[in-house]
Amino acid sequence: MRLNPTQTLEQIASMIDARYSGDPAFPITGINEIHKVEKGDLTFVDHPKYYAKALSSKATTIIINKEVDCPEGKALIFSDDPFRDYVYLTKQFRPFEPSAELISSSAYIGEGTTIQPGVFIGNHVKIGKNCLIHANVSIYDHSVIGDNVIIHSGTVIGADAFYFKRRPEYWDKMHSCGRAIVEDNVEIGACCTIDKGVSGDTIIGKGTKLDNHIQIGHDTVIGQNCLFAAHVGVAGCVNVEDDVILWGQVGVQKDLTIGKGAIILGQSGIAKSIPGGKTYFGSPVQEAKDKMRELAMLKKLPDLMKLI
Amino acid sequence: MRLNPTQTLEQIASMIDARYSGDPAFPITGINEIHKVEKGDLTFVDHPKYYAKALSSKATTIIINKEVDCPEGKALIFSDDPFRDYVYLTKQFRPFEPSAELISSSAYIGEGTTIQPGVFIGNHVKIGKNCLIHANVSIYDHSVIGDNVIIHSGTVIGADAFYFKRRPEYWDKMHSCGRAIVEDNVEIGACCTIDKGVSGDTIIGKGTKLDNHIQIGHDTVIGQNCLFAAHVGVAGCVNVEDDVILWGQVGVQKDLTIGKGAIILGQSGIAKSIPGGKTYFGSPVQEAKDKMRELAMLKKLPDLMKLI
Amino acid sequence: MRLNPTQTLEQIASMIDARYSGDPAFPITGINEIHKVEKGDLTFVDHPKYYAKALSSKATTIIINKEVDCPEGKALIFSDDPFRDYVYLTKQFRPFEPSAELISSSAYIGEGTTIQPGVFIGNHVKIGKNCLIHANVSIYDHSVIGDNVIIHSGTVIGADAFYFKRRPEYWDKMHSCGRAIVEDNVEIGACCTIDKGVSGDTIIGKGTKLDNHIQIGHDTVIGQNCLFAAHVGVAGCVNVEDDVILWGQVGVQKDLTIGKGAIILGQSGIAKSIPGGKTYFGSPVQEAKDKMRELAMLKKLPDLMKLI
Repeated sequence: MRLNPTQTLEQIASMIDARYSGDPAFPITGINEIHKVEKGDLTFVDHPKYYAKALSSKATTIIINKEVDCPEGKALIFSDDPFRDYVYLTKQFRPFEPSAELISSSAYIGEGTTIQPGVFIGNHVKIGKNCLIHANVSIYDHSVIGDNVIIHSGTVIGADAFYFKRRPEYWDKMHSCGRAIVEDNVEIGACCTIDKGVSGDTIIGKGTKLDNHIQIGHDTVIGQNCLFAAHVGVAGCVNVEDDVILWGQVGVQKDLTIGKGAIILGQSGIAKSIPGGKTYFGSPVQEAKDKMRELAMLKKLPDLMKLI
Repeated sequence: MRLNPTQTLEQIASMIDARYSGDPAFPITGINEIHKVEKGDLTFVDHPKYYAKALSSKATTIIINKEVDCPEGKALIFSDDPFRDYVYLTKQFRPFEPSAELISSSAYIGEGTTIQPGVFIGNHVKIGKNCLIHANVSIYDHSVIGDNVIIHSGTVIGADAFYFKRRPEYWDKMHSCGRAIVEDNVEIGACCTIDKGVSGDTIIGKGTKLDNHIQIGHDTVIGQNCLFAAHVGVAGCVNVEDDVILWGQVGVQKDLTIGKGAIILGQSGIAKSIPGGKTYFGSPVQEAKDKMRELAMLKKLPDLMKLI
Repeated sequence: MRLNPTQTLEQIASMIDARYSGDPAFPITGINEIHKVEKGDLTFVDHPKYYAKALSSKATTIIINKEVDCPEGKALIFSDDPFRDYVYLTKQFRPFEPSAELISSSAYIGEGTTIQPGVFIGNHVKIGKNCLIHANVSIYDHSVIGDNVIIHSGTVIGADAFYFKRRPEYWDKMHSCGRAIVEDNVEIGACCTIDKGVSGDTIIGKGTKLDNHIQIGHDTVIGQNCLFAAHVGVAGCVNVEDDVILWGQVGVQKDLTIGKGAIILGQSGIAKSIPGGKTYFGSPVQEAKDKMRELAMLKKLPDLMKLI
């Protein structure tokens, strides 16, 4: 999430009543969760396992729960609970705004676009030209839809990330302040869900076609001209390159990459990054030809057993 | 379902024009399907396999299609088709009531709760304080939502149980007269479905978090602080204890228990009750470490075959 | 799709500015994709692999990208891009018509039918008697719903087929001009999607019951009194005979037949036609008893390995 206008270290630290290390006028131009940081960003870290990663990331201001020296050219904010303070800040800069109307007056809808009845379009949504948004679609605040996009009924664009921190007594919710972006010429089937990014963008690349009941998790980036069949579920922070085909009911775990042109057969499960240009099958997936050979072997096992 | 006011054996029997055995003034305080009976309840049994179970259950009035002696302290109603008569009675006491408005005037909505546009809230629904119900959610009659609950767009709370009796020529529908109950601090993702109970309650326990496209069947009880990822499907009459994690696309069959703290890896299928505190994988599930070992062995099978 | 009034070969050819072979007055009574053609239909073929099939099919007018002799009693239209011209024609005869109202004034709704709030009913939809359409259902143009049908909230009837032609730079969309037909006494759960046919009809047969989150692809025909549990996905052009039971999360690939009375256990995947009257399991499916035996063998494999 970009901050406009830019904030200073002192301003941000005072909002959460925290000590800091660095120039009070140090600029903070964005707030981002560690997966999507760049120069000028504020991020947070609260687990020793990730201190080094956060301190050496592109983020230039870090909320941290340990007394460490401030890296050169950066700033630190000290907090006993960085997650809590980070969530607090995101809520200040991007609070949830209730809508009184089905189509918010702050939404922009391009020329030639048809909005069918019952569609909800939240605040600050942008929809391009010549789109067709079918009945009863819901588009959350700040979503961006390109030109020539078709979205079928029941689909939900930009719902919150499924991102919770385990506390001893409960699951603590991250406040999602990112966006869902649907590029030009995309078609999204009925009853799909494209979650917004936690602080960055979830992106459905140009020309990609999604069937019905598809789930795309937060901050996941889908390339161009991909084709996903019904009931595909993709977790958060996944990178799907161009021209990937996922057949029905494929499941994809978080934080991995599917290479360009990969084809994944139905009901497969992807738990690790896989190279492009090949066909895969199984849960967890292997190359399809290997998996098929295994399954053929398995059928011979009863006879093999008798032999022994 | 509770009956208010209490009915008598004679009143109920006369509604279906049936003979009975017992004190005409014998009180009937509720109507429940056999899974959820307690003292004072009317239930039904129509299959010899279940006669003994029904007659010895906590239910005190039983509609039955066999001439048996009335157990002490109970009452019997004789019917050639107990299912038909049971369904008829439930429809008298809890008929479907059409709604003319998106938000029924008989619904109660607590202080600080935000209802976004396009939300349907049926008759006699109760929603607690400080909830956020996103656009185009549908909440059927008699559902109960606690405090601080978030429900994302497209989700359906309290639709009918998927419960049909096989007749020679057709599937005969059970009339669902139970409720869906969502406890405090629950978050439910987009395009989820939480069916109402057949006669009892489907419950999503306090603090539990559901991702998108999740199905929870009738009369299923989910414990506290569970976490279910996208596309999880749980059938009817399941008991999920506290702190259970179901990863994406897990399927759970009916009438079983998942023990406290169990973790089920993605795409697993659960067909029998499993103890808590362990990690499971596979369809049907085994302990994950056993399943992983099997899969590793399977990969070696081609070489083994050559050896022999 | 039927053409009313009937068109002539010359009329159709002139719409796409194409040469033709045959009597200019040759009648064209329908436009259909090759899966569903009958006498009088116009269809198209653009791949050498399918020339013979298209030319010998029941279709009597064929748009083709090769100079061939016109078969007796038929007509040909020559095009450098039959897909493009076929799509163009279907759009002329069945263009998308935007709706201004939730319930189109051209829709017909039978006596005794209840339409709950937020339901979208498109142009030329027919709904029979005594139906119950729950809140926030979306029914696209030209869909046909029989008598005594129940459709739960969030469900989408008649969205476009997921049917794209691969072009070098993009996926080219087929224009769906078929219908979704839901026969008498069907019940469809919440958040289901029944796509319309590409040019023919997708049919849910009399008395069939669908649970929640179910996907039925274009031109698929489901028989009578079938029962599908939650998250079942059936691709396009599938033929499911009567009395078939698909348990939860079963996936079915396109262009195949499931025989009468087959029972498919949960999470199975069907990639080829299977005979009726049996129980199946696995992905890809086998007879359940064979699959269970394999899985039992697999558990013994570690011991077997030690033995060797």
